[in-house]
Amino acid sequence: MSGNTFGRLFRVTTWGESHGPALGAVIDGCPPRLPLNAADIQVELARRRPGRQAHATRRAEMDQVEILSGVFEGLTTGTPISLIIYNRDVRSQDYDELQEVFRPGHGDFTYQRKYGIRDHRGGGRASARETAARVAAGAVAQKVLAQENIKVIAFTLELGGVRATQVDESIIWDNDFYCPDAGVLPAMQERVQEVRTQGDSLGGIVEVRVQGCPAGLGEPVFDKLDAALAQAVMSVGAVKGVEIGAGFAAAGMLGSEHNDPLIPGGFAGNRAGGILAGISNGDEIVLKAAVKPIPSIAKEQLTIDVHGQPRVLRIRGRHDISAIPRIVPVIQAMVRLTLADFLLRHRAISCEP
Amino acid sequence: MSGNTFGRLFRVTTWGESHGPALGAVIDGCPPRLPLNAADIQVELARRRPGRQAHATRRAEMDQVEILSGVFEGLTTGTPISLIIYNRDVRSQDYDELQEVFRPGHGDFTYQRKYGIRDHRGGGRASARETAARVAAGAVAQKVLAQENIKVIAFTLELGGVRATQVDESIIWDNDFYCPDAGVLPAMQERVQEVRTQGDSLGGIVEVRVQGCPAGLGEPVFDKLDAALAQAVMSVGAVKGVEIGAGFAAAGMLGSEHNDPLIPGGFAGNRAGGILAGISNGDEIVLKAAVKPIPSIAKEQLTIDVHGQPRVLRIRGRHDISAIPRIVPVIQAMVRLTLADFLLRHRAISCEP
Amino acid sequence: MSGNTFGRLFRVTTWGESHGPALGAVIDGCPPRLPLNAADIQVELARRRPGRQAHATRRAEMDQVEILSGVFEGLTTGTPISLIIYNRDVRSQDYDELQEVFRPGHGDFTYQRKYGIRDHRGGGRASARETAARVAAGAVAQKVLAQENIKVIAFTLELGGVRATQVDESIIWDNDFYCPDAGVLPAMQERVQEVRTQGDSLGGIVEVRVQGCPAGLGEPVFDKLDAALAQAVMSVGAVKGVEIGAGFAAAGMLGSEHNDPLIPGGFAGNRAGGILAGISNGDEIVLKAAVKPIPSIAKEQLTIDVHGQPRVLRIRGRHDISAIPRIVPVIQAMVRLTLADFLLRHRAISCEP
Amino acid sequence: MSGNTFGRLFRVTTWGESHGPALGAVIDGCPPRLPLNAADIQVELARRRPGRQAHATRRAEMDQVEILSGVFEGLTTGTPISLIIYNRDVRSQDYDELQEVFRPGHGDFTYQRKYGIRDHRGGGRASARETAARVAAGAVAQKVLAQENIKVIAFTLELGGVRATQVDESIIWDNDFYCPDAGVLPAMQERVQEVRTQGDSLGGIVEVRVQGCPAGLGEPVFDKLDAALAQAVMSVGAVKGVEIGAGFAAAGMLGSEHNDPLIPGGFAGNRAGGILAGISNGDEIVLKAAVKPIPSIAKEQLTIDVHGQPRVLRIRGRHDISAIPRIVPVIQAMVRLTLADFLLRHRAISCEP
Repeated sequence: MSGNTFGRLFRVTTWGESHGPALGAVIDGCPPRLPLNAADIQVELARRRPGRQAHATRRAEMDQVEILSGVFEGLTTGTPISLIIYNRDVRSQDYDELQEVFRPGHGDFTYQRKYGIRDHRGGGRASARETAARVAAGAVAQKVLAQENIKVIAFTLELGGVRATQVDESIIWDNDFYCPDAGVLPAMQERVQEVRTQGDSLGGIVEVRVQGCPAGLGEPVFDKLDAALAQAVMSVGAVKGVEIGAGFAAAGMLGSEHNDPLIPGGFAGNRAGGILAGISNGDEIVLKAAVKPIPSIAKEQLTIDVHGQPRVLRIRGRHDISAIPRIVPVIQAMVRLTLADFLLRHRAISCEP
Repeated sequence: MSGNTFGRLFRVTTWGESHGPALGAVIDGCPPRLPLNAADIQVELARRRPGRQAHATRRAEMDQVEILSGVFEGLTTGTPISLIIYNRDVRSQDYDELQEVFRPGHGDFTYQRKYGIRDHRGGGRASARETAARVAAGAVAQKVLAQENIKVIAFTLELGGVRATQVDESIIWDNDFYCPDAGVLPAMQERVQEVRTQGDSLGGIVEVRVQGCPAGLGEPVFDKLDAALAQAVMSVGAVKGVEIGAGFAAAGMLGSEHNDPLIPGGFAGNRAGGILAGISNGDEIVLKAAVKPIPSIAKEQLTIDVHGQPRVLRIRGRHDISAIPRIVPVIQAMVRLTLADFLLRHRAISCEP
Repeated sequence: MSGNTFGRLFRVTTWGESHGPALGAVIDGCPPRLPLNAADIQVELARRRPGRQAHATRRAEMDQVEILSGVFEGLTTGTPISLIIYNRDVRSQDYDELQEVFRPGHGDFTYQRKYGIRDHRGGGRASARETAARVAAGAVAQKVLAQENIKVIAFTLELGGVRATQVDESIIWDNDFYCPDAGVLPAMQERVQEVRTQGDSLGGIVEVRVQGCPAGLGEPVFDKLDAALAQAVMSVGAVKGVEIGAGFAAAGMLGSEHNDPLIPGGFAGNRAGGILAGISNGDEIVLKAAVKPIPSIAKEQLTIDVHGQPRVLRIRGRHDISAIPRIVPVIQAMVRLTLADFLLRHRAISCEP
Repeated sequence: MSGNTFGRLFRVTTWGESHGPALGAVIDGCPPRLPLNAADIQVELARRRPGRQAHATRRAEMDQVEILSGVFEGLTTGTPISLIIYNRDVRSQDYDELQEVFRPGHGDFTYQRKYGIRDHRGGGRASARETAARVAAGAVAQKVLAQENIKVIAFTLELGGVRATQVDESIIWDNDFYCPDAGVLPAMQERVQEVRTQGDSLGGIVEVRVQGCPAGLGEPVFDKLDAALAQAVMSVGAVKGVEIGAGFAAAGMLGSEHNDPLIPGGFAGNRAGGILAGISNGDEIVLKAAVKPIPSIAKEQLTIDVHGQPRVLRIRGRHDISAIPRIVPVIQAMVRLTLADFLLRHRAISCEP
């Protein structure tokens, strides 16, 4: 399989099932002598943690991370950094009836078809719980980016059709929706409440902005920076679309509208989203990700069982109304991992003796 | 750098500049004993060839491909397949003034910043001409897919705001826009003519549908099939956004709307776009790509030169009005390359002695 | 760095330092539905375990392995298999004086030069303790090989100049030297005792034989099977030379002596060591590895400290007299990992729909 | 298959069959702004060229290399460098009878078994002719090494049992045996003449010494520098064994003999061969490779045909008496490619903003 590793030089391998004893990540290729401790990681994990938001899943995981290797006296050593998070609040019996039934919108059916076997408890490897390892690894990646003062901002642009119209970065992590527009918070809250009552779920859009990224990152032609970001972000389970800069709006523009004129010191406009011909241009990188509504809904659904027979399914257990906002730090982490990798890749050819 | 190779098992490495002596691709990992000859490739190259469409670039390349290795007596041998296309109609003098000036929307600026050097003639490696190698390689990938009766259809969904509303696959390659809806061809033609007169350019949307793909392709968690497709398609120069299935529309749906119920023999609905949890589900794979307007426009543009001084630029030379339709076979090729690779990756774990 | 992953399809990533809390391996790409439990791994770890042999290091690690993911109800699921071994009997104070001094023959100096930092306790990542993770992973690889009845035998051919002259596979794991020749055991024992008294250490030669390997494994031209085996085995710390088949003796042979004639059903002779042009030929694969004497000796040695000043060093702590026999299961594991990977790589191109 | 690419950052992909139209290499990841022209490569190719030495194969290839991409106005641009060498003096009819017969010691049998098809003409992809592409790529790698004044010396240590006892680097390329000891040339000449008369062939040993390699190259634990060199050198067809430093002799040494004491400014002794714990230590890197006798001999040999029937074979065509000396620049090239790759890999983690 071998799809559980991300990156070429700054490489992350994640492992773990939702209801197994633990999950984790091994980071190989992290430069030595970076300050790192568990608290650096914990702060990021807290943002993804279930149970944090009023409207989110009620599984109460503390998500306590331990660093098992690669750090000595508070500094990275250049050897693999192994991170582990033990699963505590596991209630596998909630999933007993799913042993035989495929949940619509989930990976139950495809895992069964691909592997001929699956750990049905909590979605096994396909669970969103897997993303805790990504967030932990992303916190380490951020240490590499910090060396060059690169900052990755992520937030909820839209939730259930309610869209932020202004961006105040300072409030993002202080509200339940990781939304940068205080004005729309009540409407978001109302929308969530309404859908919860209906036993349904919501999608939305996450936006990422990268500030301070130097020009020159990206490896033409197949490993363009935007291509790598698209893979990174689309690899997060609920994401169904990715845009760079003007994105799909570009399809309706004229060349004279879309081109960003160069001016001394930069660009007049940023329809490109900070990337030209697959290489960062020094401007802000702007990316949007479409997040589908969470497939686990309380409503009755039609499906089939492992024998191919029709079944009516009503999902129990503890579930979020939306992957937003918990997906925000996950997408942020994927962008960080991508940039850290490309920073190292660029150094390999640009540093000289 | 090393960004010029695509795929893990079915691997393609491309090389070549727009105005160099030749360009090409080396395909490593192609299974042995597949029938292959230059004509199989030529038919695909013809669809991408400049000068084919009335409204496209007037550079008159024949794009004659030669197979230099890996094929013996009409069959692949399992050794690397080297494909070469010599450049013939090169008029580098058209680009003399671009030696010092960065074209807006192009890679001139970023290549210069990344490498400290660039072949300015025709965009060098960043030229769309590079995609000829992709199309050639994609024709070989299709030989692998044909073994399992997998069919990759690609077409123009939208051009300059004019959108197809029905899909007749049989007419795609027979019209100048690779559009499956005969009814909108006149409007597309009109839109192109209008913009040509203005010295401007157009964007659009390409759609890809994969039929006959078995369930089970895709490698969780980072190499999900949709993530790999996103990278593949976003790595095509002009693409600024990628959607799978419902894409950005999913952001506004309820879970009960977005979930595709399972029914005996398949799914009722395909909002998922044929992929669940990163693994193909046996349904049609549906992908859309946003194509930006071509940056080379006849209008005057503001820019800077290599010394950072402001300049007014009017681009000469031979340029298309839109990357559409020539980008259609390119995107099709990237999807083929991705699927061929994932097919082999899946065989590695699913075939038994 | 990224050197801590081995394999392309059957991939192993190891992590952990000698005196950190734990060490482990993540195996990605293992085919699903193979029976696997901790006991399968434990039996292999026991052969590498310190303290098992009378003459070996006195560090008393139980090396208890836990499977943290990738196995469900006794079967592999196709998802990453995470293995962890906690370090128990750590006496870091033995190494306090090594914080400032480089031990000859060890990685102390080169790790310091490469990373500008090192975990000096017990050799950190460069410790032979790292190989426990390889052995654990090798036990999983053997599950893949067992599907095709491939058997990897490894043994001590030579220790301190005492060489086995016959091979009785049945006694290998039952004697303290993992030696297949009962007749030379007393001489080996004597040699070890003699050198222990001198405060010195011994080298030797390990031989590996692979039985039942089908013809066709190996990926020309750079990933020849013998090339991959050479890397795999040379990546074990103490190995300084690798031979396939006749090895260095081939340098002195005539072509007519070295060529193995083909006969119906196989070969008359096996100077090739089971590999021709980088591809297994169906005959027994034969490999030899030269193992250097353990660098930690009780004798006084000249060295320098981290300030470049000359020092006289007398190493304390618990050390083996030779990497043999504990290195035997490690080399065996590396061969198993290589073959499992090449088996999957071959299936990718040889299995058809 | 995918075994035709070497390296992680400085990556070379080779292609081509012995009797196809051409062979070549694509180098991806070469840093920009290095001076490079065809003549730089040609001088290395001349040393590997058939027909150069009196006793070597009589196929008269000029091996004229063309650079098709990646170089602009005499400097590398950071984009892929495509090198091509057309085959001229092809006499495929010499091989007609080999269509049905497997030559002992060659890849005929294993290619047939692996792929179910093979280009029998001149050994196809398994021909030593493939190594021309390696030598060409190695010349480019040397450009990277030259930036840090790293020098790779290679020579014939032993041929047909005649061994050099002193090393005068200045005469290596000036004699027919690439031997650094003028005193043994007559004996080598005599040995070759004797074996030629017998219709037989000879093996030997090649030694490589790397001077000026900085401490710090090598990626523990699996990608140790010695492990990577072992793979690189063993991937050359005729090589059956590789030693680093003391090599197999280390197996018979005591620790006190083998350990190289550290002294201010370096090491007293170099049994390690310049590598400790897989990382270069700043001392001279020393490697030896055992080369088997060429399998194509004039004598009658027993073999089988593709139907499994016994046959008596007498090989015709033009063949060398030994892979030495033409293999010397090939092994040198593989070491250069390895070091260039590891230099870039090290820069990725050691260069800071």
